[in-house]
Amino acid sequence: MSKHPPDQEHIDENMMKVEVNLDDTPGEWLGYVMDKLFDAGANDVYYTPIYMKKNRPAVQLQLLCSEDRFAEMKDIVLAETTTLGIRYYPISVYRMERQIREVDTKWGPVTVKEGLLRDRVVKAAPEYEHCKALAEQHHVPLKDVYHEVWKQLK
Amino acid sequence: MSKHPPDQEHIDENMMKVEVNLDDTPGEWLGYVMDKLFDAGANDVYYTPIYMKKNRPAVQLQLLCSEDRFAEMKDIVLAETTTLGIRYYPISVYRMERQIREVDTKWGPVTVKEGLLRDRVVKAAPEYEHCKALAEQHHVPLKDVYHEVWKQLK
Amino acid sequence: MSKHPPDQEHIDENMMKVEVNLDDTPGEWLGYVMDKLFDAGANDVYYTPIYMKKNRPAVQLQLLCSEDRFAEMKDIVLAETTTLGIRYYPISVYRMERQIREVDTKWGPVTVKEGLLRDRVVKAAPEYEHCKALAEQHHVPLKDVYHEVWKQLK
Amino acid sequence: MSKHPPDQEHIDENMMKVEVNLDDTPGEWLGYVMDKLFDAGANDVYYTPIYMKKNRPAVQLQLLCSEDRFAEMKDIVLAETTTLGIRYYPISVYRMERQIREVDTKWGPVTVKEGLLRDRVVKAAPEYEHCKALAEQHHVPLKDVYHEVWKQLK
Amino acid sequence: MSKHPPDQEHIDENMMKVEVNLDDTPGEWLGYVMDKLFDAGANDVYYTPIYMKKNRPAVQLQLLCSEDRFAEMKDIVLAETTTLGIRYYPISVYRMERQIREVDTKWGPVTVKEGLLRDRVVKAAPEYEHCKALAEQHHVPLKDVYHEVWKQLK
Amino acid sequence: MSKHPPDQEHIDENMMKVEVNLDDTPGEWLGYVMDKLFDAGANDVYYTPIYMKKNRPAVQLQLLCSEDRFAEMKDIVLAETTTLGIRYYPISVYRMERQIREVDTKWGPVTVKEGLLRDRVVKAAPEYEHCKALAEQHHVPLKDVYHEVWKQLK
Repeated sequence: MSKHPPDQEHIDENMMKVEVNLDDTPGEWLGYVMDKLFDAGANDVYYTPIYMKKNRPAVQLQLLCSEDRFAEMKDIVLAETTTLGIRYYPISVYRMERQIREVDTKWGPVTVKEGLLRDRVVKAAPEYEHCKALAEQHHVPLKDVYHEVWKQLK
Repeated sequence: MSKHPPDQEHIDENMMKVEVNLDDTPGEWLGYVMDKLFDAGANDVYYTPIYMKKNRPAVQLQLLCSEDRFAEMKDIVLAETTTLGIRYYPISVYRMERQIREVDTKWGPVTVKEGLLRDRVVKAAPEYEHCKALAEQHHVPLKDVYHEVWKQLK
Repeated sequence: MSKHPPDQEHIDENMMKVEVNLDDTPGEWLGYVMDKLFDAGANDVYYTPIYMKKNRPAVQLQLLCSEDRFAEMKDIVLAETTTLGIRYYPISVYRMERQIREVDTKWGPVTVKEGLLRDRVVKAAPEYEHCKALAEQHHVPLKDVYHEVWKQLK
Repeated sequence: MSKHPPDQEHIDENMMKVEVNLDDTPGEWLGYVMDKLFDAGANDVYYTPIYMKKNRPAVQLQLLCSEDRFAEMKDIVLAETTTLGIRYYPISVYRMERQIREVDTKWGPVTVKEGLLRDRVVKAAPEYEHCKALAEQHHVPLKDVYHEVWKQLK
Repeated sequence: MSKHPPDQEHIDENMMKVEVNLDDTPGEWLGYVMDKLFDAGANDVYYTPIYMKKNRPAVQLQLLCSEDRFAEMKDIVLAETTTLGIRYYPISVYRMERQIREVDTKWGPVTVKEGLLRDRVVKAAPEYEHCKALAEQHHVPLKDVYHEVWKQLK
Repeated sequence: MSKHPPDQEHIDENMMKVEVNLDDTPGEWLGYVMDKLFDAGANDVYYTPIYMKKNRPAVQLQLLCSEDRFAEMKDIVLAETTTLGIRYYPISVYRMERQIREVDTKWGPVTVKEGLLRDRVVKAAPEYEHCKALAEQHHVPLKDVYHEVWKQLK
């Protein structure tokens, strides 16, 4: 467990990157395994297209997790995919200082995650699920909700 | 069947492009189906990485064939992959005038396919299988064989 | 509207393929627009990675729809993405004869969509959402549910 | 030649899509040919990663041009790449109504291209080269220039 | 050299991941180099599409090998590709316990590699080359051979 | 700073690989940030297509730099993209012995960077910018300039 307040600038040193090459797992199962890995505490999960031997279009699953989650991640990957092995290496993760604020739009409030560098706000990410909910409720394009949030930001 | 001598500049008008999206076929099978399609007379077969619904990394099989081969191509795709449908549209194919010549290298002869534009040779493709055979026999890099062929060209 | 019983072998001739290149739409919005297009009746929607001018990694949205849905698709793409234009061309879609059956597994029933070629079942696709529901309820790998279904198929 | 004022909503019917698969052209040359094709009047040029036979990672060049530019495009592709053939098919292009306006930011003016759907502005694309020039002159992030422009938009 | 019986669950700690970015090697040569690297003892070799500077569509070669094979791998990459450098880092490889069994199908025997987790068989991979040989000999789809093998399991 | 003459065979041990996953940065900005990172001393910068959660087509920025440049790289990535974090790990870089020579072509001189392995020239890379300048000045295909250079070599 990290000793930093999670929203302060810090470096996570006990992180691992896991890579698995899959040339005999159908894509259908891979959408499912991504969700399972996130639910079990993965920090990130993503796929890269690769080309393997014998003309096989294939997929590389990559995931980022803390060392203490690795055993669980390994079990999910081994149970849900067709791989017989898993590769991994340590990786460091720098995280900006973050703060959360709420922005009011004409359709309702949206949470914004801000990133700070040397005490200055240098970026602001509107929470996707909030924007999506407003877009759906008010029948407006998602794009318009984002633009509305951006306009409210100082 | 084409009425042109195949090596003269011409346009094939009776060609078809076939596309199949595959999110539940393992990559292993796709290397196999590519060979089957070429053996059955496909002009080209290739794969593109795509992302489909429900977070599925997937593959699009594309193939080019003449109209009179389409029924056979369709049967192979339906038998060997998991798709329930096939999309296609007509496509025109312009082909340069071509001529074949032989080039001598210090390791042996290599066939070169030349492309002509308005009677001028504008490109020369050494035959891969010949270059590969020489590289293997003489234990030299494939790259060196290609460079040797290029040097012999005019 | 098609005049064929939709489960018989047939060719849809009034289909369109739509392509949109996007180098200034964030990926976040593209997950959203895919769902909107499916909800509005797209037959398929998928993304391809492309590289555009000025070193821009970008994405091509492709969608398949019937001609009579095109106006609606166009409106969604124009509202939800950043493009100023849309490209399209007609495409034919061959569809195999299909039949639905139910298969019993030790965890419960799963619907299977079968494809028939010249009256012979040549493929069988277990319904993903059913398999997923059983996997989640019974805490077994999704892969095991699929294998169980396949074993039940004669 | 189009008979519409180019900024009004219209459909270009005399457009062509060109596709070339390249497994023996180095990537270095492909950056160059993209620029040449744009300079010669291509409406769009982009690359897609593909996998071809014999385990070859390859690239598909796609370009969009008007029919009357096709001969020139063909000559450039044949001269600058290694292909011996070119595939193409007609494609329709719907274009939104557009208007240009200028927006003042604290760093200077930026041109914005707006797209209109049924007389309503539904999107606004700040001109990249203007934003880039301001970012470089004033030593501010490009992202900040875009956000500044967006905020000025009603 | 590993001190574990290779089929028992273990972790290989002396493995290396090698990465090479290639923007001036034709795809044709890359199919060849993949085979050479496998022949020389690479544990895995695969390609990823990347986009490099100056609008170059390019390819990243990645390979996995044991530390004591690295010198040989390096020599092949330097001889057969156009790179002037090679990047690498240590990587750990977890391998499941494996066992080999033979399965009888109506077309002949197929070897299956099984993976065990805590003494339970959790996956079974039919040997591709065996399935392919049966499919070709008996003129049946490869897919049918795999399904036949899966049905015989447990 | 390296203590080796930079053109001799050596291994750089103080290098870092940086990875950033981007699902909410438009492609337009990414072309820009690549140039900024090279200008600030990155050894390499490239993009890989990835697929992230919630059906997002996305991009991974990867960069290679020396440890003493890392702080600067981090600041550029944080300022110019939308990420809130950066992942990195140490990587070793083997570099071949290099030498520069000049080659005369009928259109003018071109610099060639040669790579040496055990005192033998095993590769020769014509300088792209020189070849491009000659191609443009003399209105000849870039491909012809490269071929002309290759013919002059040994």
